[in-house]
Amino acid sequence: MSQADKSRPATDKRERILDGALKAFARKGFYNTKVSEIASEAGVADGTIYLYFKSKDDLLISLFEDRMEWVIDRLNTELSTVAGVEERLRRAVELHFQLAIEEPDLAEFITVELRQSSKFMKEYKNPKFLDYLKLLESLVEDGQEQGAFRLDVEPRLLGRVIFGALDEVLLLLTFSRSPNRDVVEMTRQVTNIFIDGLRAR
Amino acid sequence: MSQADKSRPATDKRERILDGALKAFARKGFYNTKVSEIASEAGVADGTIYLYFKSKDDLLISLFEDRMEWVIDRLNTELSTVAGVEERLRRAVELHFQLAIEEPDLAEFITVELRQSSKFMKEYKNPKFLDYLKLLESLVEDGQEQGAFRLDVEPRLLGRVIFGALDEVLLLLTFSRSPNRDVVEMTRQVTNIFIDGLRAR
Repeated sequence: MSQADKSRPATDKRERILDGALKAFARKGFYNTKVSEIASEAGVADGTIYLYFKSKDDLLISLFEDRMEWVIDRLNTELSTVAGVEERLRRAVELHFQLAIEEPDLAEFITVELRQSSKFMKEYKNPKFLDYLKLLESLVEDGQEQGAFRLDVEPRLLGRVIFGALDEVLLLLTFSRSPNRDVVEMTRQVTNIFIDGLRAR
Repeated sequence: MSQADKSRPATDKRERILDGALKAFARKGFYNTKVSEIASEAGVADGTIYLYFKSKDDLLISLFEDRMEWVIDRLNTELSTVAGVEERLRRAVELHFQLAIEEPDLAEFITVELRQSSKFMKEYKNPKFLDYLKLLESLVEDGQEQGAFRLDVEPRLLGRVIFGALDEVLLLLTFSRSPNRDVVEMTRQVTNIFIDGLRAR
């Protein structure tokens, strides 16, 4: 075991492995990262990883679930302070884009690395992603209930449409040279399109 | 060499390998597909693949370029017969979604398999994808020039926003149980959101 392995409580280890995996995936990509590199990044022995995760695919899924829980909590906390469906939608768009600035490794993980796992894309039910889609859907539903948004669109489809747009723009921001400036302007444009497109007439 | 290898002209081989790769990737996923399985699907000897493609990643990129050229030609042909920016945007959305019905293996390849190649996502310049984005951008630009669409959005960003939305909905349609019915309704809803969101006011 490495020095780091002994000096911190064991309960930290799972979290340290997840942190190490995020850094390693961002640097080398999911498929090119060896489990031993994640162990080295986390400061644990190679075998320790398998005490917590069955495989690299399982580690990727756990990492996604862990970080999405944080993304969802952050969005819920933020939205709890914001009134009005249009402003709530604006904040949701902005928070998604801000990942490129606040958590660049996570932004790259979500937009690039995640899609490299066939298990994640095809076999995994993905409850946390569905929770995030539900949040976007509920913004549309709330607007419809309050008479602010049109009734001839399905919230479930619109949740996907908005997510697809946010995801693609986050990819753009992840590789942007001036993400701070771009986030402000892109939030404005993307929000305007969706709010005006959704508005009841 | 297999029987099929001898019975068809050599000029077909590249195309047969691409067709075989598309089928094999759709069935087993990019990473789980062996080059020998592509060869067997294409009816060529394993070594023949390496006469045309340097690696499985290069084969994936060539397959993407070949199919995107077809997607772009089809869209250009279709749009050449359609007048009016709103109707042109509607046709572009519909054609994208119809891939799930007309070319299900290609739809799955674009929405799932393609993202599994780190080389494709990170190193490849991706000219055909940029051509497709340019087409979507030009729909927004044309609408702006004709005074139909708002001027306070950048066509380049909107091309990405529309592509992200189309891509996510195509993923939904790829795994849909009633894609024929869904394509009609999803085209209507997605087009309405973007047209009303983009409309000059």
